[in-house]
Amino acid sequence: MSKTIYRGTFVHTPDPRTLTIFTGSVYVSNGEITDISKHDLNQADPLPSSDWTSANLITAHATKHEFFFPGFIDTHTHAPQFPNTGLGGSETLLTWLEKYTFPVESTFSSVPRAKHIYTHVVARLLAQGTTCAAYYATLHVDATNELARVCYDLGQRALVGRVCMDSAEHCPEFYRDASVEDAMRGTKACLDFVRSLDPDARLLRSCVTPRFAPSCSPQALERLGDLAREEDLPVQTHVSENVDEIELVGRLFPQCGSYTGVYDRYGLLGGKTVLAHCVHLQDEEIALIEKRDAGVAHCPLSNVCLSSGNANVRKLLDAGLKVGLGTDVSGGYNPSLLAQARVAEMVSRQVAMSTGVERSRLAPAECLFLATRGGAKVLGIEDKVGAFEVGKSWDAQLIRLDAVAEDDGVDGGSVCLFGSESWEEKVQKWFFCGDDRNTVLVWVGGRLVHQRKSG
Amino acid sequence: MSKTIYRGTFVHTPDPRTLTIFTGSVYVSNGEITDISKHDLNQADPLPSSDWTSANLITAHATKHEFFFPGFIDTHTHAPQFPNTGLGGSETLLTWLEKYTFPVESTFSSVPRAKHIYTHVVARLLAQGTTCAAYYATLHVDATNELARVCYDLGQRALVGRVCMDSAEHCPEFYRDASVEDAMRGTKACLDFVRSLDPDARLLRSCVTPRFAPSCSPQALERLGDLAREEDLPVQTHVSENVDEIELVGRLFPQCGSYTGVYDRYGLLGGKTVLAHCVHLQDEEIALIEKRDAGVAHCPLSNVCLSSGNANVRKLLDAGLKVGLGTDVSGGYNPSLLAQARVAEMVSRQVAMSTGVERSRLAPAECLFLATRGGAKVLGIEDKVGAFEVGKSWDAQLIRLDAVAEDDGVDGGSVCLFGSESWEEKVQKWFFCGDDRNTVLVWVGGRLVHQRKSG
Repeated sequence: MSKTIYRGTFVHTPDPRTLTIFTGSVYVSNGEITDISKHDLNQADPLPSSDWTSANLITAHATKHEFFFPGFIDTHTHAPQFPNTGLGGSETLLTWLEKYTFPVESTFSSVPRAKHIYTHVVARLLAQGTTCAAYYATLHVDATNELARVCYDLGQRALVGRVCMDSAEHCPEFYRDASVEDAMRGTKACLDFVRSLDPDARLLRSCVTPRFAPSCSPQALERLGDLAREEDLPVQTHVSENVDEIELVGRLFPQCGSYTGVYDRYGLLGGKTVLAHCVHLQDEEIALIEKRDAGVAHCPLSNVCLSSGNANVRKLLDAGLKVGLGTDVSGGYNPSLLAQARVAEMVSRQVAMSTGVERSRLAPAECLFLATRGGAKVLGIEDKVGAFEVGKSWDAQLIRLDAVAEDDGVDGGSVCLFGSESWEEKVQKWFFCGDDRNTVLVWVGGRLVHQRKSG
Repeated sequence: MSKTIYRGTFVHTPDPRTLTIFTGSVYVSNGEITDISKHDLNQADPLPSSDWTSANLITAHATKHEFFFPGFIDTHTHAPQFPNTGLGGSETLLTWLEKYTFPVESTFSSVPRAKHIYTHVVARLLAQGTTCAAYYATLHVDATNELARVCYDLGQRALVGRVCMDSAEHCPEFYRDASVEDAMRGTKACLDFVRSLDPDARLLRSCVTPRFAPSCSPQALERLGDLAREEDLPVQTHVSENVDEIELVGRLFPQCGSYTGVYDRYGLLGGKTVLAHCVHLQDEEIALIEKRDAGVAHCPLSNVCLSSGNANVRKLLDAGLKVGLGTDVSGGYNPSLLAQARVAEMVSRQVAMSTGVERSRLAPAECLFLATRGGAKVLGIEDKVGAFEVGKSWDAQLIRLDAVAEDDGVDGGSVCLFGSESWEEKVQKWFFCGDDRNTVLVWVGGRLVHQRKSG
């Protein structure tokens, strides 16, 4: 039995409105939190039992302004689009897919390329403190399985989806499923691979992934819905991102009543469904999502970058929806959930300014909740991760902030402490100014999966 | 005569719409560009004369994806507010001034504290590639002079303004000028100090700085306007940032017609005036600013952070106004002009989305123009800096981007190159993903003022 005691300051958001900061020790046995003691750090650790006498000890040092924070959960990103990060910024959704996205994704027919890129992607996300991600891969079975293998080997928790897209009209000839049968065969091959690699779903789950309604035939949507139900699988897709896209869906699926209604019609809207974007939902769609208990991946940066619009998250939360954050690379240019939480705050201010409804604004604590526990709810793993609680997995990061020394402190990072900050203020400075330089160590299920080299 | 040849790839924005990329050599003698040769890097440098045979050579290496870029120009920031960077995010302007800003600024009665903080501020801005900044200091003469001295010693080009604020009604008792006489005496003392330190204004200019209309008595505004005219000094102040502030100004100065009209009434609106924010200007105010040839410091991040609103920069540019970018720390939480240029792009998308006017959107090249040559125009130093042209000062930065290696590339920075990028795409990735880790060397007037330690 591997036992580790994590000692120091802990920061998390057990509920959406509360940033909780406590000192003490968290006791982790075989990657799971078995006990938590909240106490002054001047006191010795009260060991739960004599088994803990020889446990490892990992300390967040107050002198270095270190604290533990739950690992970030990215509810929506596209691993094969990382080479395009920071490109394509003058397009909107439908032209951007054609000019940038389909071409780069199509290159993943090469497995060595997939291995190279995906190794970078997963390592980079771990370095940002992202301990769990819901990935779209491409339609290539081997490359998608390579992504699952890289996540497994590097120790990241993940949903991995082979993208389904069989519409001859709305997918390019060089990059689409040749038939419904092909789409289903590929999806099942990826499902089988993930189950063979990680039979207990300790880290990995395969995810049914129709790209979005316009890219799929009704037959494919129906068969994917059947598969999700039969195998009790999570589902991820896009909905209501862009007004032209919504109009297109209305023309293609007039019988479904709404964009969300398409997924509902084909059995793809349920308690394990992750809906990316949800920018322009009608009230009936919000009610339907709530009724089906589906979750929302809010991707505020991507929605600005593609001029899609600003999702009104407060309205979604008020309606009882589960909401997490998605970086949506490369629609968004930043793979960091911390940056995404910050943008969520900024975009909620835009919503408040444009609607005049002041409470549309999300507090920093709420945005950090969305980036951790909110995401865990959306991905159906709230029992496992998202906060520091007994029974949960040790998916965590050690954050280190820098003090400004007399004649130095310039190269250390973007957070500057001047000595008088309370812990609440330190966390606020990290929220607004922090980046991956502050993420020093990262664990998933108790395994150390990233250690910053410099700083 | 010190001579240096800078060789490699050069990127700049000679006009607002054009990102120009060229290879070759720039010849710098005593800090000034005397010659530019655009040629293929396979060719030897054509030396302008035999004097250059023993010149220093500094190369931007294509193998490291390096290029030279003009130094950034920050047209509006508050040096004493840096300790508050990342704090106070739940307030709007008038309450934020009371709760966060006046208290921190008042501590600059301590000169050792001023020296400590200002040394950090200037070093940090240089590390971000900011070679020139328009600073607000505090009302303390000694501390303001300390800021000027730090800029001079570390080699940063700067406008330094002692803040004037004598309104008993709208400034706190613990932090205000005791009288108009005090305000004028302090302003003149700072002017004298800067002139004694840098008689040729090689780097420094003192700047008349009424904090904003509500903080000043009409008498103070009038006397400051007289001083600016008599001594031909630049002026900086705030205008039209927040709707409550505008209403307050309307009540305090009903005879002036508009907020901008207040400054015009007191002789503070001229070709050397820098107006921060300009979020809610009326058309008549825009016309007045154009007529007086005053410049705008656009501070998009601060304007979102304090929920002030989104300035419509396209409208200001269309009206013929000079526009630069301001980080406005600590209203904004990011001291980087690169980040500010990015936010300017994002905020212009918000304007385009809310107005439906697509051309409100600013292109990345335009935002980089605002961060360099646009700022130079606003500060009245376009003849000296802002682009790579003969006769201009060598105020520049060496940018280095990282390629993604097989099993590495995580700790190097936020820009990821995958090998197929054109130079245009490299610059685009830097624009959207870059940070201070990419700024390796920084020069002002040919003097090396920053060298990154790591990376």
